[in-house]
Amino acid sequence: VIDKGVDFANYFCTYAFLYHQKEMLSDRVRMDAYYNAIFENKHHFRGKAVLDVGTGSGILAIWSAQAGARKVYAVEATKMSEHARELVKANNLQDVVEVIEGSMEDITLPEKVDVIISEWMGYFLLRESMFDSVISARDRWLKPTGVMYPSHARMWMAPIRSGLVDQKKSDYEGSMNDWLCFVNETKNYYGVDMSVLTKPFSEEQRKYYLQTSLWNNLHPHQVVGTAAIIKEIDCLTATVDDICEVRSNFSSSILIENTRLCGFGGWFDVHFRGRSDNPAQKEIELTTAPSIDSSTHWGQQVFLLHPPFRTSEGDDVNVSFLMNRSKENHRLMEVDLGCEIRQSSGKLLPLIKNKFYIE
Amino acid sequence: VIDKGVDFANYFCTYAFLYHQKEMLSDRVRMDAYYNAIFENKHHFRGKAVLDVGTGSGILAIWSAQAGARKVYAVEATKMSEHARELVKANNLQDVVEVIEGSMEDITLPEKVDVIISEWMGYFLLRESMFDSVISARDRWLKPTGVMYPSHARMWMAPIRSGLVDQKKSDYEGSMNDWLCFVNETKNYYGVDMSVLTKPFSEEQRKYYLQTSLWNNLHPHQVVGTAAIIKEIDCLTATVDDICEVRSNFSSSILIENTRLCGFGGWFDVHFRGRSDNPAQKEIELTTAPSIDSSTHWGQQVFLLHPPFRTSEGDDVNVSFLMNRSKENHRLMEVDLGCEIRQSSGKLLPLIKNKFYIE
Ligand SMILES: Nc1ncnc2c1ncn2[C@@H]1O[C@H](CSCC[C@H](N)C(=O)O)[C@@H](O)[C@H]1O
Ligand SMILES: Nc1ncnc2c1ncn2[C@@H]1O[C@H](CSCC[C@H](N)C(=O)O)[C@@H](O)[C@H]1O
Repeated sequence: VIDKGVDFANYFCTYAFLYHQKEMLSDRVRMDAYYNAIFENKHHFRGKAVLDVGTGSGILAIWSAQAGARKVYAVEATKMSEHARELVKANNLQDVVEVIEGSMEDITLPEKVDVIISEWMGYFLLRESMFDSVISARDRWLKPTGVMYPSHARMWMAPIRSGLVDQKKSDYEGSMNDWLCFVNETKNYYGVDMSVLTKPFSEEQRKYYLQTSLWNNLHPHQVVGTAAIIKEIDCLTATVDDICEVRSNFSSSILIENTRLCGFGGWFDVHFRGRSDNPAQKEIELTTAPSIDSSTHWGQQVFLLHPPFRTSEGDDVNVSFLMNRSKENHRLMEVDLGCEIRQSSGKLLPLIKNKFYIE
Repeated sequence: VIDKGVDFANYFCTYAFLYHQKEMLSDRVRMDAYYNAIFENKHHFRGKAVLDVGTGSGILAIWSAQAGARKVYAVEATKMSEHARELVKANNLQDVVEVIEGSMEDITLPEKVDVIISEWMGYFLLRESMFDSVISARDRWLKPTGVMYPSHARMWMAPIRSGLVDQKKSDYEGSMNDWLCFVNETKNYYGVDMSVLTKPFSEEQRKYYLQTSLWNNLHPHQVVGTAAIIKEIDCLTATVDDICEVRSNFSSSILIENTRLCGFGGWFDVHFRGRSDNPAQKEIELTTAPSIDSSTHWGQQVFLLHPPFRTSEGDDVNVSFLMNRSKENHRLMEVDLGCEIRQSSGKLLPLIKNKFYIE
């Protein structure tokens, strides 16, 4: 069971800031995708009832109304709802868009809807676990013929090279050197021997510097092997059980001569395809893959290997990936990542097991 | 009523990291003060029962034991208690120091104690509101003859000059310029008029950049007028009511010819004096006043005036200061600060009223 107050303190509170909404509203790739998904598929909206799960500033609800919706229910858990209501009014859509403040899970609507639209994606797709709220909304409020926006989502992973591996290692070592000085001084000046805490401190710092996945905007050149899909979600049918755990075994071929395998980059894409019996007129894709000129505020999540490996074209990397929600906070993730290199010569390097935290 | 889970998410969680404890343990001014307070006043500890409220790593409990305490109860709300227990054992004091995991408010001790020691001070003394827990411990567990470590605390305030006033103003203006571009682009590219949010956005950003007090290490030269004591606390007798609100009207004389009054710096000191009928052999002071070579991790809290004033030697600044706890989070503070300059010529400049947040 989730404590609502704690969930607010840990999660929702940031969404109550316009500053944070603005960051999302300034993400052109994100905005273009939703904008085009709506306005190039007006047939899904015209005269229809729409539910926007987590409306934030109200942007998707407003677009839905502008595309011809008869009624839009715009649900938002935080006080951002008040700004959304203002914005709706300023854009003269108060007769169509109804902003409702509350958790989606607690809300009752006066009717079922034809479309559920939501921007629920967190880092590496599932961080924040907000899709749970979309699933619950869908199961309670979507008509049997209803359409999900987006309709599909996928998680991707690929081997990468990155100087971050050296930087984080040196940050960690710096922190440990510092600690050892501190232990010495505390003994000399204050007569207390802290060395028994060296191990727990090093574990804490390893977790922080080496085992926490990093937000990063990867350059496509940093991807050194083939990318694999590790999860596919049909937003119309997926259950919480389906997304609670992500398990994948995949193999990637190194595509670059004599390079380093420093870790893995993870990203996602979503598609707006309507539903098979009521498809999109124009399918839209929103991808957060490494890109030179279309990067997003999601960037990629980077999982670093310490130490990195020397690797080369023709090598295969076999990866076992397992992601679960953190026990302390269901909106954060823990990842077990096993990795084994089969060199082009046929030689198999020893299996490496790593634990990561998506914080 | 305080939700324990929320309080943990907002407050306690950081103390569960050794990294954070280490920051406090590396503050030499803080460490020297407590170390000397204990070891130069062993008569208060020898053979006595001691309670350490919020023991963290266990340092004060260990010193108390090393100074000869018969028994030390070391209470800690977070899992840091486990590290404290290890540290006690590694320093061979497990027969004297008993580490108890739990909130002070929930704990029962087998006896009353002779000494309560605690390092409860937050930024500008009262941020974190941890002294509440010390008061409750004192009222429940201190013998009528018991001694408080520290025994007294004071809050100080002084007019200052600081380039931060220009920096924060320009940060704020940069953010607003950015917003206006954003409003334009959102209208042009996405057909939504966001200008109704300009006012709430500017209020949010003013609060963030201009009305939030800042951590700063002031150089003594930045203090441009006499410092005033705005609160005195006798740790033996103070009640929560006494510290819930801090109200002070004070006057400060500008001491520097032709300078800027950019705001106010706030700091605190505490004293270890024992009690009047059982005084310290050596009184110790811990001050967080602006200093060249004895700065602390507390630094000073800076409250900036926008715009700053031109002022000069002989001017008087009359200040009305009112600090209350924030309604959303009792560990954070809100400050109303009124400020009026009487120039040496006798001319009175208009009263300025400011609202600040200590976050
Ligand atoms: N269960 C829930 N009920 C209501 N709102 C929720 C929710 N879970 C998340 N949210 C809200 O959903 C928003 C996600 S961010 C997306 C905001 C907006 N739809 C946009 O695309 O710009 C946040 O404002 C968050 O507060
Ligand atoms: N009500 C309460 N009950 C138990 N511990 C508390 C508490 N309020 C605060 N604390 C703990 O008090 C500590 C304050 S920091 C000081 C730690 C240590 N005494 C030292 O001087 O280094 C934190 O570890 C915090 O978790």
